[in-house]
Amino acid sequence: MLELEQKILRDGEILPGYILKVGKFLNQQVDTDLLKKMVGETERLFGGESITKVLTVEASGIAFATAVAMRLGVPMVFAKKHRSANVSGEQYTAPVYSYTHKTSYEIAVTSSYINENDRVLITDDFLANGNALKGLISIVKQAGACLVGCCIEIEKGFQGGGDELRAAGVRVESLAIIDEMTDSALKFRE
Amino acid sequence: MLELEQKILRDGEILPGYILKVGKFLNQQVDTDLLKKMVGETERLFGGESITKVLTVEASGIAFATAVAMRLGVPMVFAKKHRSANVSGEQYTAPVYSYTHKTSYEIAVTSSYINENDRVLITDDFLANGNALKGLISIVKQAGACLVGCCIEIEKGFQGGGDELRAAGVRVESLAIIDEMTDSALKFRE
Repeated sequence: MLELEQKILRDGEILPGYILKVGKFLNQQVDTDLLKKMVGETERLFGGESITKVLTVEASGIAFATAVAMRLGVPMVFAKKHRSANVSGEQYTAPVYSYTHKTSYEIAVTSSYINENDRVLITDDFLANGNALKGLISIVKQAGACLVGCCIEIEKGFQGGGDELRAAGVRVESLAIIDEMTDSALKFRE
Repeated sequence: MLELEQKILRDGEILPGYILKVGKFLNQQVDTDLLKKMVGETERLFGGESITKVLTVEASGIAFATAVAMRLGVPMVFAKKHRSANVSGEQYTAPVYSYTHKTSYEIAVTSSYINENDRVLITDDFLANGNALKGLISIVKQAGACLVGCCIEIEKGFQGGGDELRAAGVRVESLAIIDEMTDSALKFRE
């Protein structure tokens, strides 16, 4: 999506360790005009798929997932990153290793929020090694629901997680895919 | 807001320690039809205030804040609960004590995301003792921005935080205010 790529080039910041900081418009601060356009593109890609739930993981995935779910007219569900005192009852859980934070954590969704009648679209802000997505996909499978696909705002294609999932048959659509990244330059996939 | 009150009575769950669990429709799972109506009410209350930013705190505040910011056509900013490896540069910070989790944490916003020209609406899902709101208000003040007011989805009126802030001159609007809560019943403010 050209407008997102242009925004990344203009306002993104490359930090050591292949970290792309997009807090100015996509995470900690969200440009809602751009968000509306990304939601429009997501609707174009998945609007015909009879989706019943949008699933993401806290915290930076919630803005995009909420906006997509509002557009599709379905509930948004987010996985929590730690078991919380406020989450009672049965949960689906999956372990996730974060390369950014060099630590493992568990994601959890109250099991009554997804069931075998759901057609689930997973969304997230970033896809790199794909570990968070694999955790969310595991939760969809545990629930016996149908995984329609995954829609990601920014994929770091050079880290391989997206293509690995595509090779495994998962529909993964990313609004921008970065195939090369140096300290000062980015190259997007055609 | 009658529809929210009815939803709380129908789908909310009271847990020990005056915890009202609304994960089924307001936090971990978000009913986006209800969310749209809450956004409409927020626009009615604050739409004429020339707001330039909506500020909240991760994670469960992000859905409501995103939806309000999209409607008002302004950016959404969320405070992070811990300093993150991905947040670089100057930050405004404030300490917050959580009664729910019995622990203190720090909230932080990259300082370039709010400035002295901003008219800020703070939103959150819950208001109880008001500690999270006070932290967010502190960040707005540190930035030299104008605090227009606070819009909360559910206020636990009996815990006093909202009325304390109102007495201090802050405009606090809550879409539902619970004034009494027992193990089995709720009473809303007129």
